[in-house]
Amino acid sequence: MPRYKITIEYDGTPFSGWQMQANGHSVQDQLARAIERFTGVRAIPRGAGRTDAGVHARGQVAHVDLERPWPTETVRNALNFHLRPAPVVILACEQVDQTFDARFSAKARHYLYRIVARRSPLALDRDRAWQIGVPLDAEAMQEGARHLLGHHDFTTFRASQCQAKSPLRTLDTLTVRSEGENVFIATSARSFLHNQVRSMAGSLKLVGEGKWKPERMREALEARDRRACGLVAPACGLYFMAVDY
Amino acid sequence: MPRYKITIEYDGTPFSGWQMQANGHSVQDQLARAIERFTGVRAIPRGAGRTDAGVHARGQVAHVDLERPWPTETVRNALNFHLRPAPVVILACEQVDQTFDARFSAKARHYLYRIVARRSPLALDRDRAWQIGVPLDAEAMQEGARHLLGHHDFTTFRASQCQAKSPLRTLDTLTVRSEGENVFIATSARSFLHNQVRSMAGSLKLVGEGKWKPERMREALEARDRRACGLVAPACGLYFMAVDY
Repeated sequence: MPRYKITIEYDGTPFSGWQMQANGHSVQDQLARAIERFTGVRAIPRGAGRTDAGVHARGQVAHVDLERPWPTETVRNALNFHLRPAPVVILACEQVDQTFDARFSAKARHYLYRIVARRSPLALDRDRAWQIGVPLDAEAMQEGARHLLGHHDFTTFRASQCQAKSPLRTLDTLTVRSEGENVFIATSARSFLHNQVRSMAGSLKLVGEGKWKPERMREALEARDRRACGLVAPACGLYFMAVDY
Repeated sequence: MPRYKITIEYDGTPFSGWQMQANGHSVQDQLARAIERFTGVRAIPRGAGRTDAGVHARGQVAHVDLERPWPTETVRNALNFHLRPAPVVILACEQVDQTFDARFSAKARHYLYRIVARRSPLALDRDRAWQIGVPLDAEAMQEGARHLLGHHDFTTFRASQCQAKSPLRTLDTLTVRSEGENVFIATSARSFLHNQVRSMAGSLKLVGEGKWKPERMREALEARDRRACGLVAPACGLYFMAVDY
């Protein structure tokens, strides 16, 4: 059976997350349904990463095996047709060999966290960013971020229900950039723990507000204790941007 | 009665446009309702420009007279409270004197038109941009745009139902910039005719596709004939960005 790699964009707002659920309200369910409508055969796409309810993707990747070979353009267009009106679209589709696994072949995952620092609520960017009513010091946040780079035990920045066997991860980048009223936190690693990006972003927000000194990020990391985490940033600001293979 | 200048952001998708309607589904209706809930007195905000159904604003400006003076922060916060859950927010509020008129005191209006040139539909940016399935030549569009700068009869780029007495307008800027899969058309003038920005953007899109040579923009302008307009770009890509006073 030919295997396809698909790159997916979605608005996470109306979904229970990536992962299939009994209620059928996940992104994976939407894709499985579109695949079945297109091919007539049930097939489950396997994703590079599980995103939580409300988390968005600009470049989630999945693989799926279809019963027979189709031109990749046909797969993309047919799935986009059958996905409507759900806010899930296939950006790209390519045929790959059976050794390709969206999750296990991934060499790096890239996430972006978006904060909007302004007094007023968001009209145009509602559910697309975390709105914070005070200005943030992006330089202090960047200074704090540096303490998390490299190979560490990230127990502090990991959801209590995280199922990974080890809390050890290698953080390759964690950069903070401000642009007008926006603050963007970009991060990449081979893999992340459950809620790791949102936990780092929530703690960095405290640094940006001046409630934490930048060095407090290192102390929190070294505590290896979930209670040392500042807070978990809301899902709506998080974007799964890309996967490298 | 004290006069307030308010700067407003809105998602135009669910509204019939800026202008008050018998059906009550306009942005102006939402604001009038919020003002009445806050002050107990009916007062109509007057806008700098009428936006059509589906057109967004990041910096619409209006003025409104209230029965008694309030701190500007109170006006902003109270209106934002009473506007919920409509996607309309007050970004700023200041007290101005009675000579200030949001429409007639305006010295320049700034609009942005956003196109996304890619094959796949939009998931995260649905209703926020005009998606076009082919690549656009932004340099050719910029070359075409130059022909419209300055003082001209813009009959070609004006809705047939436009109510302005004169079709003469002075276009101060019209620039085309590409950024990844986005093409942004930014324009400013003291005032615009009805549908002028969408008519210019729609014609420039034909230049970007190679269907029109850049000089065709000048020929279209000189025709002073609505039938010479390429097409009218959809409302969802248009943003009313700012007003200068």
